[in-house]
Amino acid sequence: MGIEPQQFEAMRRRVAGERLRRRPAPVLPGAAGGGGRVHRVILGVDPSLRGTGYGLVRVERTGMKALGHGTIRCPSSWMRSRCLAKIAEEIRAVVGRHGPTVCAIEGLFYAQNLQTALLMGEARGACLAAVAEAGLEVFELAPRRVKQAVVGYGAAQKDAVARMIQRLLDLEVLPEPDAADALALAVAYAQECRAGVLSPLKAI
Amino acid sequence: MGIEPQQFEAMRRRVAGERLRRRPAPVLPGAAGGGGRVHRVILGVDPSLRGTGYGLVRVERTGMKALGHGTIRCPSSWMRSRCLAKIAEEIRAVVGRHGPTVCAIEGLFYAQNLQTALLMGEARGACLAAVAEAGLEVFELAPRRVKQAVVGYGAAQKDAVARMIQRLLDLEVLPEPDAADALALAVAYAQECRAGVLSPLKAI
Repeated sequence: MGIEPQQFEAMRRRVAGERLRRRPAPVLPGAAGGGGRVHRVILGVDPSLRGTGYGLVRVERTGMKALGHGTIRCPSSWMRSRCLAKIAEEIRAVVGRHGPTVCAIEGLFYAQNLQTALLMGEARGACLAAVAEAGLEVFELAPRRVKQAVVGYGAAQKDAVARMIQRLLDLEVLPEPDAADALALAVAYAQECRAGVLSPLKAI
Repeated sequence: MGIEPQQFEAMRRRVAGERLRRRPAPVLPGAAGGGGRVHRVILGVDPSLRGTGYGLVRVERTGMKALGHGTIRCPSSWMRSRCLAKIAEEIRAVVGRHGPTVCAIEGLFYAQNLQTALLMGEARGACLAAVAEAGLEVFELAPRRVKQAVVGYGAAQKDAVARMIQRLLDLEVLPEPDAADALALAVAYAQECRAGVLSPLKAI
């Protein structure tokens, strides 16, 4: 599944802030979130018990740069509490390493049942407690909005998101799906802030 | 709603380990959980975003002693991430103060919908990450099992649990509902371990 060159070029421009129809780009590059702070380093997280994706993006004058990304893996043999401890520890370490000031996380989500929602919630809680304790602002973005911002199509497939993220951030290797989703959250957050945010992002 | 004297006496004996039909009391007092470790100080937690109950119980030769209990309150004006940070911080502080080695948390739970389950999960995740990082073992107990162990009746009302906990632990003041539930979890855990645990507790 390829990305059309024009489509990619349009996305690249959007990410680089070249097509700001509604509001001029801020004088200083950076993403002004709902809280009024301008954020230059953004952490995206896609929490899940066995594979939490994270991705860090720095907003620069000419676009965005990926600072790091990865997946926090917890084997299925591990107990839940051990996974949650590892998620919190790793997220704290990532925040310490790169110094993001804002965190973008998936909003409206789908779960098959209450038990799954509870497990997803636990992983989110471990992540969010760690980032909030480190003083980051947290914003929720709906999955459709992330896809719309990154691929230009709200119902885009997971691999289309990963490919677009690879090209936009000039990554040598295709990021793993969870890490790509996390990078997409960070990119979408930055982009929405740059574009002036028609419907405000939800701080949580 | 009163507790019958006989009913209370039976409970008191159970808690004091006097009616061990199935297995003799361990030589050293303490609660041997599924992990094989013997735990003397037990933390019970009843997590929720706006009011997380916690309670600490020490298993002694003659019964149990409450070391502390309380409710971590987060005003409704606070953002979720701030609440989760506070929950993690406070739980960490409580663990540091009293040195529990095991945590008992509610298992099978009821949520009205996916959104509620997610929020409950987030609060649980913040708690569990904090206790697991501190090295505590974590066990889940179903609400019915806790009521059965503490009040002797699986469908007991919330205030009956609080009253029984007050009497069993000889508390001067009736504990607040969330703190009482947390103390009940700790008491039930200790009791089930003492009694030999017919159906093993679920480590998570």
